[in-house]
Amino acid sequence: MFPLEEIKKISQASPSKIVMLVIDGLGGLPDTKTGKTELETAHTPYLDELAKKGICGLIDPVSPGITPGSGPGHLALFGYDPLRFTIGRGVLEALGIGFELKKNDVAARGNFCTVDKKGLITDRRAGRITTDKCIELCTLLARIKLPEVDSFVLPVKEHRFAFVLRGSKLHAELNDTDPQKTGAAPYPAKHAKQIAKHTADIVNNFIKQASGILARHHPANMILLRGFSKLPDIPSMSDIYKLTPAAIAGYPMYKGLAKLVGMEILSAEGGIQEEIRVLTDCYNKHDFFYVHVKHADSAGEDGDFDRKVKVIEQVDSALPKLLNLKPDVIIITGDHSTPTTLKGHSWHPVPLLLYSQYCRADNAQAFSESACLSGGLGRIPATDIMPLAMANALKLTKFGA
Amino acid sequence: MFPLEEIKKISQASPSKIVMLVIDGLGGLPDTKTGKTELETAHTPYLDELAKKGICGLIDPVSPGITPGSGPGHLALFGYDPLRFTIGRGVLEALGIGFELKKNDVAARGNFCTVDKKGLITDRRAGRITTDKCIELCTLLARIKLPEVDSFVLPVKEHRFAFVLRGSKLHAELNDTDPQKTGAAPYPAKHAKQIAKHTADIVNNFIKQASGILARHHPANMILLRGFSKLPDIPSMSDIYKLTPAAIAGYPMYKGLAKLVGMEILSAEGGIQEEIRVLTDCYNKHDFFYVHVKHADSAGEDGDFDRKVKVIEQVDSALPKLLNLKPDVIIITGDHSTPTTLKGHSWHPVPLLLYSQYCRADNAQAFSESACLSGGLGRIPATDIMPLAMANALKLTKFGA
Repeated sequence: MFPLEEIKKISQASPSKIVMLVIDGLGGLPDTKTGKTELETAHTPYLDELAKKGICGLIDPVSPGITPGSGPGHLALFGYDPLRFTIGRGVLEALGIGFELKKNDVAARGNFCTVDKKGLITDRRAGRITTDKCIELCTLLARIKLPEVDSFVLPVKEHRFAFVLRGSKLHAELNDTDPQKTGAAPYPAKHAKQIAKHTADIVNNFIKQASGILARHHPANMILLRGFSKLPDIPSMSDIYKLTPAAIAGYPMYKGLAKLVGMEILSAEGGIQEEIRVLTDCYNKHDFFYVHVKHADSAGEDGDFDRKVKVIEQVDSALPKLLNLKPDVIIITGDHSTPTTLKGHSWHPVPLLLYSQYCRADNAQAFSESACLSGGLGRIPATDIMPLAMANALKLTKFGA
Repeated sequence: MFPLEEIKKISQASPSKIVMLVIDGLGGLPDTKTGKTELETAHTPYLDELAKKGICGLIDPVSPGITPGSGPGHLALFGYDPLRFTIGRGVLEALGIGFELKKNDVAARGNFCTVDKKGLITDRRAGRITTDKCIELCTLLARIKLPEVDSFVLPVKEHRFAFVLRGSKLHAELNDTDPQKTGAAPYPAKHAKQIAKHTADIVNNFIKQASGILARHHPANMILLRGFSKLPDIPSMSDIYKLTPAAIAGYPMYKGLAKLVGMEILSAEGGIQEEIRVLTDCYNKHDFFYVHVKHADSAGEDGDFDRKVKVIEQVDSALPKLLNLKPDVIIITGDHSTPTTLKGHSWHPVPLLLYSQYCRADNAQAFSESACLSGGLGRIPATDIMPLAMANALKLTKFGA
């Protein structure tokens, strides 16, 4: 990919506007009966019309064959090499519940688990306790006092919680305490670098107190922590692209990812129609909008083909209002594929549609996996999208004389 | 891209011949009425016939979305990573007027500018003085004496000149003296590395003397210097490819770029017909020919669609004489796109045609942006062209056993 350091040198602010519409988990696989994917099954007259006027292609979010998590998938869309900028599991867990991580916080993903009398793990997920039970236990653990630092224990879902330490001199170079198998005792936190020894001591202090508190809450009588991490040091989109970017999203994780790269967060919890309303209201205040549509991915993960088709059709119906704003550049794509047949994220490349006055339209007659395959953009890494969007918005000067 | 160091190991000299015809600014955008680009509008029976026999594709000179200057655009065509081998603005300015830079020369791009009585810049371009006035002032500045070094002040156009220092112990790690805004005083030259302090002192001595000489030449009463640079350290094409390469070009910039990579320069100032005549005359003396057609780019920069069409048709008419020579490999492409609608270089990928006996012909029936889109070469970085040309000329042995 073209280096961010170089993009920064040639990017320039201008009044032109870019809208990037991310349909989470957009790409799919054909239904065995019809031979058509979710996107190909959906009735999408407006998307197809835009595909005719625009230029299409397929993106690899990370690399061919690699299934991205939401973090790498989105970072790539925003132009950041997902192999260079990595987001720790702990940080992602905290972002996912909307916790406002500060620069020096250390976050980890936590599991409640079951240990026997010898302290050996018998169930790494404590029989998947209810989320209500998780909330109750998190409240108990939140009372733990640690010298010099604050700790946060935040319920996520079932046996999962987020653990955050806040204070000075905290470091995240710690191993997981989760041995990833039953029959073994949890590992103590141990520092991978000397500088993190102090943090390891604090974590072990916390685990000891937690173990005492949880003793009478079998099966959730112990905790496992993994993915200790801090917020990554990412240059902001305004620094690199000279943009004033905004995110329109409903789910905490995506707001958190957008915040990581310096976007202003505009909440819209009511689906695509409300998101477009927010976009319209704030259209004069920003020159880049990331609009996130969650439910295509959720439907894919649930294996619900028809529901995913409907979500795509809802996006199509909302498109005219977006087009009315006449953005200079429109990008429509996804952060990864979520085929309903696989009930999860997949490695398949994701359809991409770019529209601008200067896009050199191709022969794509519809927005679909198969039409995008012969599109004019070819098959490109997702990290190429931002340079292309910037170029089409005439926000990049020449590279070299 | 495949590394030059590895190409060097597998390249071998052979009698086969490669002709690379570079139509500057070849790629375009559709005319809004006809929906056809400049290349698609041009009547090009010989190019189309060659496209049928050959294999087509699209190249990204630098990276998707990135608009290349002539320097990076050409380096990529010659197989050099334009991010690894960069050409300073000062060097390019000197090359552009045909100045023979030596290895340790330090070159900068100069502007005549206007300063007020306090020494603050009121016009960075001195009201765009005439080229005649520029020549007069350069002659005056050429009289400046500096201890131990020679200086050259070479008129370019209007307020622009090239400045070159020649001597021992010169270094180019200097900031621009141009603050890039009015109301500020020019910066003194300052060394970014200690080793360049001596050069900074010399430059400041020159500027002081220039300021005295120019005082009575308002509005051109001061100079600004930027892009201090030396010739980049580039391995020659004969070293890497075992070729005896020659450049057939009319404009100084392109001769300069070709010289940078070790080509012999064969001047031809009378357009494509004369270039093909020179090619024919010298055909036995070299095994690689870079032929540069400037006027497609000039027409594009002027926004003159019809003139660009005509230049392409002139190239087409000259093609039979080139084909008569029966080169083993013919490459026809551009160093970047220059759509007339944008009146400048652009980021759009550039049509590529490769013909050889062994090219595995595709289904492209014409030489055009749209036909190249589904061509057999796909969409590739421009740096892949030289390995493909070398392979088709049977000048590359196996990589690995």
